Amino acid sequence: MSGTYSQPSVYFFGQGRADGTATMKDVLGGKGAGLAEMTNLGIPVPPGFTIAASLCITYLETQQFPPWLRSQVETSLQRLEAATNRHFGGSERPLLVSVRSGAPVSMPGMMETILNLGLNDRTVAGLGKESGNEQFAWDSYRRFVQMYSAVVLDLDKGPFEKMLEAAKHRAGVERDIDLPTAEFKALVKQFKAHAEKASGKPFPDDPMEQLWGAIAAVFESWHTRRAIDYRKLHNLPDSMGTAVNIVTMVYGNLGEDSGTGVAFTRDPSTGERQLYGEYLINAQGEDVVSGTRHVEPIARLKEQMPAAYAELDRIARILERHFRDVQDMEFTIERGKLYMLQTRRGQRSGQAAVRIACEMVDEGLIDQDEAVARIPPNDLNQLLHPMINQSSKVDLLTSGLPASPGAASGKVSFSADEAEALAKKGKAIILVRRETSPEDFHGMVAAKGILTARGGMTSHAAVVARGIGKPCVASAQKLTVDEEHGCLSVNGRELKAGDWITIDGGSGKVYAGKAELQAPVLSAEFTRLMEWADKKRHLKVRVNADTPADAHKGRDFGAEGIGLCRTEHMFFEGDRLVAMREMILAQDLEGRKRALAKLLPMQRGDFESIFRAMEGYPVTIRLLDPPLHEFLPHAREEVEEMAKALGKPAEEVQRVVDSMREANPMLGLRGCRLGITYPEITQMQARAIFEAACAVALRKGRVQPEVMIPLVANVVEFRKQALIIREVAEQVFREKQITVPYLLGTMIELPRAALTADEIAREAQFFSFGTNDLTQTTWGLSRDDAGRFLPYYLENGIVEDDPFQVLDQAGVGKLIEMAASLGRKTRADLKLGICGEHGGEPRSVTFCDSLGMNYVSCSPYRVPIARLAAAQSSLSERGTVDRTRATV
Amino acid sequence: MSGTYSQPSVYFFGQGRADGTATMKDVLGGKGAGLAEMTNLGIPVPPGFTIAASLCITYLETQQFPPWLRSQVETSLQRLEAATNRHFGGSERPLLVSVRSGAPVSMPGMMETILNLGLNDRTVAGLGKESGNEQFAWDSYRRFVQMYSAVVLDLDKGPFEKMLEAAKHRAGVERDIDLPTAEFKALVKQFKAHAEKASGKPFPDDPMEQLWGAIAAVFESWHTRRAIDYRKLHNLPDSMGTAVNIVTMVYGNLGEDSGTGVAFTRDPSTGERQLYGEYLINAQGEDVVSGTRHVEPIARLKEQMPAAYAELDRIARILERHFRDVQDMEFTIERGKLYMLQTRRGQRSGQAAVRIACEMVDEGLIDQDEAVARIPPNDLNQLLHPMINQSSKVDLLTSGLPASPGAASGKVSFSADEAEALAKKGKAIILVRRETSPEDFHGMVAAKGILTARGGMTSHAAVVARGIGKPCVASAQKLTVDEEHGCLSVNGRELKAGDWITIDGGSGKVYAGKAELQAPVLSAEFTRLMEWADKKRHLKVRVNADTPADAHKGRDFGAEGIGLCRTEHMFFEGDRLVAMREMILAQDLEGRKRALAKLLPMQRGDFESIFRAMEGYPVTIRLLDPPLHEFLPHAREEVEEMAKALGKPAEEVQRVVDSMREANPMLGLRGCRLGITYPEITQMQARAIFEAACAVALRKGRVQPEVMIPLVANVVEFRKQALIIREVAEQVFREKQITVPYLLGTMIELPRAALTADEIAREAQFFSFGTNDLTQTTWGLSRDDAGRFLPYYLENGIVEDDPFQVLDQAGVGKLIEMAASLGRKTRADLKLGICGEHGGEPRSVTFCDSLGMNYVSCSPYRVPIARLAAAQSSLSERGTVDRTRATV
Repeated sequence: MSGTYSQPSVYFFGQGRADGTATMKDVLGGKGAGLAEMTNLGIPVPPGFTIAASLCITYLETQQFPPWLRSQVETSLQRLEAATNRHFGGSERPLLVSVRSGAPVSMPGMMETILNLGLNDRTVAGLGKESGNEQFAWDSYRRFVQMYSAVVLDLDKGPFEKMLEAAKHRAGVERDIDLPTAEFKALVKQFKAHAEKASGKPFPDDPMEQLWGAIAAVFESWHTRRAIDYRKLHNLPDSMGTAVNIVTMVYGNLGEDSGTGVAFTRDPSTGERQLYGEYLINAQGEDVVSGTRHVEPIARLKEQMPAAYAELDRIARILERHFRDVQDMEFTIERGKLYMLQTRRGQRSGQAAVRIACEMVDEGLIDQDEAVARIPPNDLNQLLHPMINQSSKVDLLTSGLPASPGAASGKVSFSADEAEALAKKGKAIILVRRETSPEDFHGMVAAKGILTARGGMTSHAAVVARGIGKPCVASAQKLTVDEEHGCLSVNGRELKAGDWITIDGGSGKVYAGKAELQAPVLSAEFTRLMEWADKKRHLKVRVNADTPADAHKGRDFGAEGIGLCRTEHMFFEGDRLVAMREMILAQDLEGRKRALAKLLPMQRGDFESIFRAMEGYPVTIRLLDPPLHEFLPHAREEVEEMAKALGKPAEEVQRVVDSMREANPMLGLRGCRLGITYPEITQMQARAIFEAACAVALRKGRVQPEVMIPLVANVVEFRKQALIIREVAEQVFREKQITVPYLLGTMIELPRAALTADEIAREAQFFSFGTNDLTQTTWGLSRDDAGRFLPYYLENGIVEDDPFQVLDQAGVGKLIEMAASLGRKTRADLKLGICGEHGGEPRSVTFCDSLGMNYVSCSPYRVPIARLAAAQSSLSERGTVDRTRATV
Repeated sequence: MSGTYSQPSVYFFGQGRADGTATMKDVLGGKGAGLAEMTNLGIPVPPGFTIAASLCITYLETQQFPPWLRSQVETSLQRLEAATNRHFGGSERPLLVSVRSGAPVSMPGMMETILNLGLNDRTVAGLGKESGNEQFAWDSYRRFVQMYSAVVLDLDKGPFEKMLEAAKHRAGVERDIDLPTAEFKALVKQFKAHAEKASGKPFPDDPMEQLWGAIAAVFESWHTRRAIDYRKLHNLPDSMGTAVNIVTMVYGNLGEDSGTGVAFTRDPSTGERQLYGEYLINAQGEDVVSGTRHVEPIARLKEQMPAAYAELDRIARILERHFRDVQDMEFTIERGKLYMLQTRRGQRSGQAAVRIACEMVDEGLIDQDEAVARIPPNDLNQLLHPMINQSSKVDLLTSGLPASPGAASGKVSFSADEAEALAKKGKAIILVRRETSPEDFHGMVAAKGILTARGGMTSHAAVVARGIGKPCVASAQKLTVDEEHGCLSVNGRELKAGDWITIDGGSGKVYAGKAELQAPVLSAEFTRLMEWADKKRHLKVRVNADTPADAHKGRDFGAEGIGLCRTEHMFFEGDRLVAMREMILAQDLEGRKRALAKLLPMQRGDFESIFRAMEGYPVTIRLLDPPLHEFLPHAREEVEEMAKALGKPAEEVQRVVDSMREANPMLGLRGCRLGITYPEITQMQARAIFEAACAVALRKGRVQPEVMIPLVANVVEFRKQALIIREVAEQVFREKQITVPYLLGTMIELPRAALTADEIAREAQFFSFGTNDLTQTTWGLSRDDAGRFLPYYLENGIVEDDPFQVLDQAGVGKLIEMAASLGRKTRADLKLGICGEHGGEPRSVTFCDSLGMNYVSCSPYRVPIARLAAAQSSLSERGTVDRTRATV
């Protein structure tokens, strides 16, 4: 203990008692807390100690270990020697340890591990003697030198692997483990010589020096690119640091009665309630995770070592009951005896998460609130991922393990960097690798899906893909991947980088070409969970739908209305586009009115179908918004075609097209500026809306139109448009002899609208926050042009999130807050909603809920995500659940 | 008096006593208040009464006269009959009246007037008998019928003028006044017959019916286009309404001992202290103002009617002393006796305003504060207007009266509508008219200058031009204007619409072609006034200057520093542009650095000159801001030229040009986004700034650089750029062995910067509000594209002012206020300024002062305007002056 630290920095566990507990994740990291908790539960864990995560930051800042840490570690080592009756660096019963990282939040594959630490030419003899297995001792020794060289000395792995391959070749064996002792001895010598040459220093023989080197390496690994990338993706603070776990070694490579594996208490892909995992006989941990050896499914263990399997199953149930959640465990069997090396919350697919949550409610482990609270809303993406259309013609190439659900098509890329670069340019990419490693992480994030030739369901590729919600097919064993030459071959066929490929992470199938994808069918558990969620939430969820088809889809996903129906999307095709262009080209009012008269019945028909689809739920219709030139052709041939269709000279059409070009169309003649400049457009649209509404009402249908005036900057704009709309409504109601109640409101999408919301609310009955445009104007950032620098900003921490994906609460959010409170000051019952793409982003949904909005609106596939996020927001307000848990 | 009105609605004046006073402008209108005050001062005013302005709005809303108003008017008429010993509608000593409008704020030429009301076939005989001049009586009668038909019955003036011309032709006379009685009688008959036919109703013979018709017409005139336009231009509320003045007629057309005129107590063009004006013998008021007869200068009156002149001069001095300001008077001399018909504050040119204010201080009429307070800052524009360059070759066409100072060049346009339309397209227009009428007002506002062939210094053209600060040459008598055929001829030469012409409203000269214009020489009075202003103000005034020349000009105009030096303007020419393009086209860092190394000495040289020019005043330098493609050519030939200059294939250059095109350049890769993406640009610019500053400091010069980072949305952007700049500064200081104190700040030009100003102020030492861009983003309105609808918005009252000209306090201003207070919350000594174009707009300057900004910055010519506006803002804070007076 030192003057600067009143808390201990090192926590011991062993002999049935631990200094720490499961609640101390912030201090001990997830792994350390799990080891401590298992020890306290009486579960067999090799004794060890954990260095607190805060020391990582201290070390990284000062680049040295404080003296009091050194003494605490030494004291803990002595305790460990006593507990194990072993001696660190001793030639008899040497104490060997593993050194492993463990951050407060699980960061799979991010941190480094060193096994068998403490071995040198002296202690290896002791280990051989004690185990009676010299080959094992020397295998352990060469593993240690190999691992230490890579992780601590930061040497290239390649030469070590080549030396190992050469040795196997010489000895004529397939598996590392089958090498004779002499070869291992030779390898240790070669490895150490190479390490000395490559690092410029002798390989450390002193176990204490080895230990401090390893601790430093774990701390340093906090600053690697892949660790930083992972934290960025998951919004984790850099200030957490990682703890270091120093644990007495147990050996899975002591022979055929030993082994090591990983297991989930339930299937992380489907959620099925059975032990799930993989193991290897006569192996150490890294053999399983790295995918370098072909693993056995955990069910085989039941046959091979029934006692060990039973013990594992028993412990699994204890842990699940204790933690009330699926556990992801690591274990080692040393000469038949099971040791638990790790337990943590098991990552799972969206499907599995939903099924597990429902079944745990049925089992009485958790209640409905917790079931709702613990599903990360974005994970539903996986349930909602498109699948390959049954009727689409596909060209099966091969199949592998269904490692992460969902189907995806993309162009083949063999490198993470290339995948990332192409994805930035908007290309759909499938990352194809022999096997993935943490270095590939950024490419996996960028790709639409991942395909590997090797590795199991718990391989790096599979675990990461599930974590980030990407489809993944792993271990497609017939696949030969030639990353160097940029091609893959399978069953005598060859594909090159850039060729299209489709994977189905639900079935494990791999297809050549681009398949047609379709919406998924939702499970009964999903429906149950969403029902629970719907009972909890205050916030309504609507859908952004421009067509009757989208409206139906929205209803299927549980949308309670349409929050944004963009009328212009109705004008972009066929006859409508022709009439629209005719309207734009008309040089006088009469000409425009003639063209609008053609559009009227089309719009009315669309609105009627949409109203019917929504069965009386409110439908917010936004009046024409985009700059008119978006409807005009730009290529010369198209202009000529259009001129022919309209019976006008091409030159005249070209002149109009040219004259309508704007320097900054986003800030030009659009939104209500169109309706004010050309009131006849507003008149036509209002007429289409009210005629459609009356038609539905006349047949006893329920209908709730909400007419939305876009891009209002100034209350007078609203007033002028509102006057026209109200007049048309009264006319239509008189004509049709029926009155339909409706609301008249505006989109708040300009800072000025938010700043003067009190004035606007005097006239407008609802506000819908158009956060896409509001973000553009608040940041002075065009979505179309942000690609030139926003990726750089994200990579360099200049912005934490893409403000077009996650609502910028500090800036845009402040305006929204101001608009909401100013608006409600003048109109207490002002209806508030959001219809930008943020409406389906969980954190943004929480923010909207906290402002007391009435609804969020988003694209059909995000409706369930918004429903769940809204429910979690309600639960979190009531303090029912720990939000960090629900969202991590 | 009625239950709904506790205040009287009708105010009598006559016999040396009036119900109203000069302070009751809001009630009586300017004219009514003037008549009342003059009556109370014992000045000869024909008796009459005024109907309060509020009745105008009541009438316009209800389209009827309240019964209590009818009775109050009748009572007042009886009082008038008693005071004048006349009878309204009587055949003996008939009471005739004028009916004239008069709004609370002077709106010259905006409202309608009817003279000689009360005449009919019976009363005309009485008038003839009483005056002993039948011809005069019938001339008055035909004038009344003509005027009433036009103003009250709203009939076309043309047919009446034709009948009059025909009569003069028949009688063989030149002047109307010379027509024999019989012709007047015949004309009255013809006029009434025509009026009946054209209006469908007999011409009213009943004087009471005539009176109510005239009152209604005055009220209705409040809603004419020219009245509405005028109010819009001057920001006057529509709710004021106009009063109606009913005044006993006196006659200037009773013979050669009678006359009528207008006079200013000082010369409204130069400010010289002498009676100034024009008159006509044997005429009624409209003959002078309309410019239809050639008027005599007031000096002639001294010779023609010395007694009347002396009386006028005496009254002028009384009024000026009483009102402590220049008066604009109307008078009539009836058979040698002078009557005053109006007095009001005299409009004047900027030059005159400054001279008069200074001389009135010297005369002890006003103090320095009032002198400063009463000059409308924008009027200085006229003093600062460019003049024709002495050395420029000019082609004199003709000359006329120097009616409103300043020189202007533009294309000839003969119609107000056309002038307005062309001006909207950015054309410089000179509006050329035979004479202007209130219908031309919008064209005069749109034109650069006005040229008329007829009318005097107090003609409509002259008065309006001075009021709105446009150069005007009036009464260029040799000019023949053929508005119908769109051409003018003068001295045998002909110009067509669209030809270039130049006018000098200071000298009255008219030139063919486009002359070179130069800055004006400022008067001693101007310097005195600005010194007084400078003593009053808190707010500093800086100049926006990009070149050493602009910097010098700014200093000449009294700028106390540079508020905005746009470094990119240094890159747009010659070698610099080539180097800049080389930089943009370089595909790697090394290439960019090579090109930047060429730019460095050029920038350093410019900065050094600018620092020297500013003699130690602070210089705010904004780092590179515009999108890079602004430096690239767009036409194919230019691309080829550039490719040749750079020694690159044209295709490659074209590819880069194409790739840099942005959908919305205003919202794209610009501002600090450039410096962040290409830190080497910021490094070069920072080095140029600090090397230049050190060079000045090393020669004992004072220098205060303020480095400004543009387009910051996020404090991290600022931090990243600041790091680079501080590093370079330290390097340069080390290299040069000298340290120059400098500030590092940012432009607040995005809503997000304003919203997060507290965070930004933690790092930035100053904020400069870039209100041009802030207006663009707050309104979602591109200045380049606003032309498509903003004029419509302005015309239709959707916006009151162009937000790019007058700072939008309700929206943009709210953000500025928020940013200022948030910023000062984290940094109490945060320096605040504004550098958008609003920095020289008086109302915006007041706003900036009210927020406690440290300075405003504007273009060189607006610096004096800003100085004066800042002084007025200080005075108004202290309550020294009535702001409404200073700005109306």
